[in-house]
Amino acid sequence: MIKRLAIIGVGLIGGSLARALRAAGAVGEVVGCGRALPNLEKALELGVVDTFTQDPAEAVAGADMIFVAVPLGAMRGVFETIRDHLHPQAIVTDGGSVKGSVVMDAIGAFGTLPPRLVPGHPIAGTEHSGVEASFAELYHHRRVILTPLPETDPEALARVTAMWETAGADVTCMSVAHHDEVLAATSHLPHMLAFGLVDTLARMRENDEIFRYAAGGFRDFTRIASSNPVMWRDICVANREALSAMLARFGVEMTDLAESIRHADGERLLEIFARAKAARDRYLDSAR
Amino acid sequence: MIKRLAIIGVGLIGGSLARALRAAGAVGEVVGCGRALPNLEKALELGVVDTFTQDPAEAVAGADMIFVAVPLGAMRGVFETIRDHLHPQAIVTDGGSVKGSVVMDAIGAFGTLPPRLVPGHPIAGTEHSGVEASFAELYHHRRVILTPLPETDPEALARVTAMWETAGADVTCMSVAHHDEVLAATSHLPHMLAFGLVDTLARMRENDEIFRYAAGGFRDFTRIASSNPVMWRDICVANREALSAMLARFGVEMTDLAESIRHADGERLLEIFARAKAARDRYLDSAR
Repeated sequence: MIKRLAIIGVGLIGGSLARALRAAGAVGEVVGCGRALPNLEKALELGVVDTFTQDPAEAVAGADMIFVAVPLGAMRGVFETIRDHLHPQAIVTDGGSVKGSVVMDAIGAFGTLPPRLVPGHPIAGTEHSGVEASFAELYHHRRVILTPLPETDPEALARVTAMWETAGADVTCMSVAHHDEVLAATSHLPHMLAFGLVDTLARMRENDEIFRYAAGGFRDFTRIASSNPVMWRDICVANREALSAMLARFGVEMTDLAESIRHADGERLLEIFARAKAARDRYLDSAR
Repeated sequence: MIKRLAIIGVGLIGGSLARALRAAGAVGEVVGCGRALPNLEKALELGVVDTFTQDPAEAVAGADMIFVAVPLGAMRGVFETIRDHLHPQAIVTDGGSVKGSVVMDAIGAFGTLPPRLVPGHPIAGTEHSGVEASFAELYHHRRVILTPLPETDPEALARVTAMWETAGADVTCMSVAHHDEVLAATSHLPHMLAFGLVDTLARMRENDEIFRYAAGGFRDFTRIASSNPVMWRDICVANREALSAMLARFGVEMTDLAESIRHADGERLLEIFARAKAARDRYLDSAR
């Protein structure tokens, strides 16, 4: 049971966690904090929060659980603001898509890694954003990855795990570095390909006509290129090491493919396509 | 009105055209032709064809319209087989995803480009294949691109246009080279990225775990990597010139992106992502 939950950043991610914990009767009071007043007023109106403030320091005062769900670029500023206002027993966790940068931001702001900070990443979301898009079931059967460090207090980890399970999520733990590699492979790289593909076409002279002939498959394939550019800039900068390594791997693969196409090497192409299809079909099956 | 329609290759594409024309009462008799006997028997059972044969030469005898819907790698063989059996007034059209190679195959088989050959490409399909997946509405409001050549008989072009319109499609004409460039950009390149991405991940040591954490977005993004490897090998070889040019363009884009990430150049990343998002959103709107 959480007595006072502070949500710093009351959008889809933060708002949905508040709603889920409320629905489960697992939280006493919810304090919302954010920069945009209209969004906070909407959160109050929707019953997602009980009170709100625009000052993170005020929001965390008296809170036993703090969930920081702000863009990666704003993490360090939030940590610096709340640092001297946290209750000694307060647990801080976050929802950032990159964990190495959040850990570095925390060390930068706190001087050392706080034992009651539990870095986390709920793998969930929709195409919509803002508190109006939030709903209590967002985390049902979705994965939440927690990346505790050797310094992390086991009791804090257990409480954050329980919180996410109460929200309906499946919680897994892995190292910070491994999280950032897995996400670079399965999320950050695909987003780069979608942005890169659409931008390549947009820069072609006849781009209007080209987009006109793009069929349904193209639409699905590039959907993620409609994601928030600022969020993705932050993710790329924050995870540049792991993402650069993935881009290099992918570059080697595409050079091989391009060479095989240029030389009309049908055997090699068939081998690549068949291996990819087998992996995709195997993954599809296992994900069912 | 088509008196006798020969469908060479009675799968999703060929079967759906037969069904659509039948439903519109626009065809007298449909002769199916293919290599797999069970599929032809199924086509007869489903009422998609009136008769069938495994010999293309027999199928085209007496037909006034012939639709060749075989894999690109089989086009030339079909053209060679039917060459001496076509009625002088018979019209031949096809459904190949690459038009330059079909034209070259026709010239190779016929010695010269037959005036009553109208190269075409219906931009339609589903994830399923075979005659059982065919349905009369597949082409409703879908684009069909015809690529007539200077040698093409205008009356043959008009009849093929009318046939596709009867099936519910929107018909556009463009040059062979332009078709192959547009499709390289909007279909062939995206498929290469999907195959390349899945194969890159499949080749990583921890691939099972990586696929386990791939969320919904990844699933959508890589769906097209489940496409038929043989069909895609044929498309890559047939359209290698235009596809190689697109892969090179995309490679330049990704090198730029990778450099910006490596140097944490947030401004440049934001510019690329914002331009891509704007193009994607504009395209989405215009496609509605």
